[in-house]
Order: sequence, then C-alpha cells, then structure tokens
Amino acid sequence: MKKSVLKLLLEHQHAYISGEEISRIIGVSRTAVWKHINALKKEGYVIDSVHSQGYRLLSKPDIITTEELQINLLGDFICDIHIYEELSSTNEVAKKFAAEGAPEGTIVFADKQTKGRGRMGRLWDSKAGIGIWLSLVLRPSIMPAQAAQLTFVSAVVVCQAVRDFTGLEAGIKWPNDVMIKGKKICGILTELSAEIDRINYCVAGIGLNVNHQLGDFSTDIVDKATSLMLASGTPYRRLELLVSILTLYDRIYREYREKGFSYILEQWKKLNCTLGHEVKVISQEEVYFGTAIDIDADGQLMVKIPEGEVRYVIVGDVSIRYVQ
Amino acid sequence: MKKSVLKLLLEHQHAYISGEEISRIIGVSRTAVWKHINALKKEGYVIDSVHSQGYRLLSKPDIITTEELQINLLGDFICDIHIYEELSSTNEVAKKFAAEGAPEGTIVFADKQTKGRGRMGRLWDSKAGIGIWLSLVLRPSIMPAQAAQLTFVSAVVVCQAVRDFTGLEAGIKWPNDVMIKGKKICGILTELSAEIDRINYCVAGIGLNVNHQLGDFSTDIVDKATSLMLASGTPYRRLELLVSILTLYDRIYREYREKGFSYILEQWKKLNCTLGHEVKVISQEEVYFGTAIDIDADGQLMVKIPEGEVRYVIVGDVSIRYVQ
Repeated sequence: MKKSVLKLLLEHQHAYISGEEISRIIGVSRTAVWKHINALKKEGYVIDSVHSQGYRLLSKPDIITTEELQINLLGDFICDIHIYEELSSTNEVAKKFAAEGAPEGTIVFADKQTKGRGRMGRLWDSKAGIGIWLSLVLRPSIMPAQAAQLTFVSAVVVCQAVRDFTGLEAGIKWPNDVMIKGKKICGILTELSAEIDRINYCVAGIGLNVNHQLGDFSTDIVDKATSLMLASGTPYRRLELLVSILTLYDRIYREYREKGFSYILEQWKKLNCTLGHEVKVISQEEVYFGTAIDIDADGQLMVKIPEGEVRYVIVGDVSIRYVQ
Repeated sequence: MKKSVLKLLLEHQHAYISGEEISRIIGVSRTAVWKHINALKKEGYVIDSVHSQGYRLLSKPDIITTEELQINLLGDFICDIHIYEELSSTNEVAKKFAAEGAPEGTIVFADKQTKGRGRMGRLWDSKAGIGIWLSLVLRPSIMPAQAAQLTFVSAVVVCQAVRDFTGLEAGIKWPNDVMIKGKKICGILTELSAEIDRINYCVAGIGLNVNHQLGDFSTDIVDKATSLMLASGTPYRRLELLVSILTLYDRIYREYREKGFSYILEQWKKLNCTLGHEVKVISQEEVYFGTAIDIDADGQLMVKIPEGEVRYVIVGDVSIRYVQ
C-alpha cells in the first residue's frame, strides 16, 4: 500500500496530488493515506503538504527500499528482494537463503555490512549509506570448474553500468577488479555450493564504493581505493545506480547463457585496463615481470616475459601490479 | 563418566568386575556406577550382574555411540563427533556445521536419514539401524576444480575398508561407486563450498549398505543394489566397520595430502572393477560403446571406441554400464 502511495507521488513530482485523489485511486481511507505519507517522511522522503492542494514529493532519501526497487526494475529476473539496514555480510545471508532454496534472481542488499568480506577471507570495509553492498543468487547450468566465468560476468556488468551511469572511464583489472584511474572502486566475491559435477547455487557478491570521501578509507587502502564521488566530484544516488546494475546484470547474464563465455570475454576485452600493460605477477612460488598480452578462452591471463616465453596466469592466489 | 564405565566393562569382558572396583577406579559413588550401568542397559548393552561378583558385559547393541567411537578411534583426525538417531541428511547437517566453522575431521552420523541424498539430487534410501550414513567435514588446500579428487579418496577408503573388514571382493566402478558382484553397496556424495580460487570446506558423504535384507530395497533398485550381509550371508557390527572406515580415512587422506592425487589414482587402479571392461557411456548428448582402458591424471575415464579413437569421459552427468 505504501508502495502505491509512493508510486503516485513519484508520478506526480511536477504537481500536487490531493489526499482525496490518492485515497480514491488506491482505494484506502484518507487516514490510511496520511499514515503512509508519514511513514515515507520518516524514511527520509521530503513531502510538501499544502492544505488545499495536497501532497508533492520534493526529494527522495539516498536509501534503497524494496518498494522503490520494485517500481524501477523491469522484467522478472530480480524476483525476490531482501534489504537490510545492517548485516554481517550480504554473501553470508544470500548463501543461507540459497541453501534454503531461494530462486535465481534473489538479491540481498545492505546499507551497512559489519563483516563485509573480500577475497581470500579479507575484510571489505562497508560503511553505512555510501556504497552498494549487494549479493545475487544465481543457479547457472555449468560445471563447478566453470564458476570463475561468473566473476567475469559480474566485472563486466559493474564496469559497464558505472561507465553508463557516471560517464567515468572505469576499466577492469584482470580478473575482476573495477578500477578508475588506477584505483579500485569495486570488489567482486563469487562463491559457490556444489557437488563434484553440479552447481547447487552461486552467490555473486558486489561491493561498490559510491559516495566515499577520503576519510572513509583506512590509511592502508586510501592510496589504492577510490569512490565514484571522489573520482568525479559529484555524489550519486545509489538507488538509480543499483537499478542500472541489476538491469544490466539481467541482460548480460542472459547473453552469457545464450552465447556462452566467449561473449563475456569479448565484453571484458573492451572494458579491460590490463592488456598491453607491463605487470608484476606475484604468486606463492615466484615473482616475475612481463607484458599482459591477452586472455585465453578460459579467462587465464597471458603474460609474455622478457625472454619471449608466454606464461598463463590462472585465476587464483596471484596478484598482478602494474609496473609504472 | 558413562564412557569410563563402558570402557572398564569392555576391558573386562572375560570376567566380572565389582561395582566397588569400578567406583574406586573411576572415583565416583557406587550409586553413580549403578546409574551408568542402567543407562547402558537401556541403550541395548546386555550386562550380567551377579551379587557377589559384580558386572560383566555379555553383548553390545549394534548402535553407534559417541563414547564407543571415542574409545575405539586412535589419533586426532576425528575431532568432533555428532551422532543422531534420525536426521534429514547427514550432508545437510555437516554443511551447516562446516558453514559455522566446524574443523576438518568433524563427522555427522545418523542411524536413519529421512531425506538421504545421492548424486544429482536423487534420494538415497537410508533405513534405521542397517547402514552407515556418514558425512565428514574436510578442509583441503586445493582449488575448487580439484575437489573431484576427494570423491576418489572416499571411494578408495570405503572399498579398502570393506575388503579388510569383510574379506568380500569389493571393487570401484568409475568414478566412485563401490560394488560387490556387480551390485552397488555404497554411494558417495562430495559437496563443496568455495570461492572461485579457494575451498571454504568440503563434505564427504558416504552411504554404505551393511545389514540390508532383500526386502529393505525398493523394487526399482533391488536388482542393482546389495548389502554386505546379502553378499556374505553374515551380519556385521556397524561400529567396528565405521571405526575401520574412519581410521583408514585418516591414513589415506594424509597420504593424499603428502603424496598428491597420483597416490590415490594408484590405489584406485588396484581396487577398480571398471578398467578392461566393455562399457556403455551414456551422456546427455550421446550413447556409445567402448572399452575402458585407463584413467588419466585428472581421473577422467579413457574409453577406446571400436573405431580405435580414445575418448576421455569426465566426471559428470555421464553413467557407464558394463556390457554383458
């Protein structure tokens, strides 16, 4: 019901709409309308009310609500929305839902994560109100060994959505970090539950820094991380950005299922900021330098070392750094 | 405390031990000893008590208790034991424990499973008191793509333990069914939770038919399945068999970590009943016949078709049948 009131207000942002009209259209009492308006105000919506004219929405808070997401999302890919003010980790909660049978297209969003996780068990700083901390449940018909493909899907989606939404020159650093001007704005953590030859479910975790200021980053990452606002000087509304990401996820993931991983690799190559660069490859066994020349059909990075040999770097506990 | 009383009774099976002596050795009152003896009787232990001589254990029930397991298991590989009379599925419960941080070597055993699962979401019939329905939590340092190796580890362990314990000619049908005289006695279901490049945990599920009679199998599997008792004519005590399996799991899994997968493949080849056989390979795409000639370093089955070409069958939704 609150969703219907909000929808009417959003449609009438140019003018006032009377309580009587709202109550007539939705089919509830004027007292009920007044209660929903008050609830929306409490959530941060600024709603002007003029005695003889009615209500008018002046501004929306930068919060994500199920109602606004449902109003803005087209299609039926995102079928189940779980939004939390505060959560340990969206991936943990999404995994629980998935283990209980949540369908593909279930999403978990948190305004703040207290135990946000990055790859290899690292922490991912996830302060309230300034980021997109999101997890999607996926159930692709692929073998567990191919699950790394999904991490490329997520990177392509976020990078393209950021480019479209902000106009900023975002690029992908192999395999799946989204970067702006050499600094990381997004981390991706893909997890899976599987049998040996069958995926039960995957969870695609996305952590995107949106409205961080310099002081929001701890000293150990302030040189390596940035946010969309820091990169452009403008704050962004997270709801619209989230809608862009989810809408693009729907499209790109569908293309992936129809055309296969080669389609994702094509998109990845268009968006990447790694190929052609001198890189330092750091694995547990060794450190070496070379030129990132291509990625192969499995997503492995091909690095040509000075002696001429081409080495294949698999997605794993390997980090690459650009050589200045 | 009950465990200490049971341990003393087990050590004195040849003669009577007085309540006074038990109370002295353990350091509890004679009333407490009497209470523990009664508790053991309720669990199915047959304990003779003669007024002037004391207690003597005449027979043990075929149930698995944490106490007896702890008494019989050497080493510290099995570090946490969870035993249930009835459970949905030991794999499901083991996955829950593992997700909450249960260490490697945690086991879940159920006397009966109400939703026992086999591969590809199939049901695994798990009646009370006649099988070993077991799941082990493992945390190997391998990549997710290598998790199929664990399914070979489990098959080698169960097949070897059954041979040692019963003297029956058990063999492994590729990749991981344990068979006796062409009928299946054990199914293995390995599951994993992972990031793209790192395993969170694995659960090795083992379902072994021990004391089934013909009527315990449903009509659709009675021709394909058997139990140790049906194969030999003798019933077996599950506790001792379970101890054999867990003890061997400790050893074989340690060898696997030290020597790598090639060690497991060697053992697998010694125990297999597939190589050299004419097989029918049934995949989603096609059906063909050939001779199973070997397995490669990744565990893929090499099948030579009549035209001479050797095809590699990966562990997946493929079933093979022996051609009579």
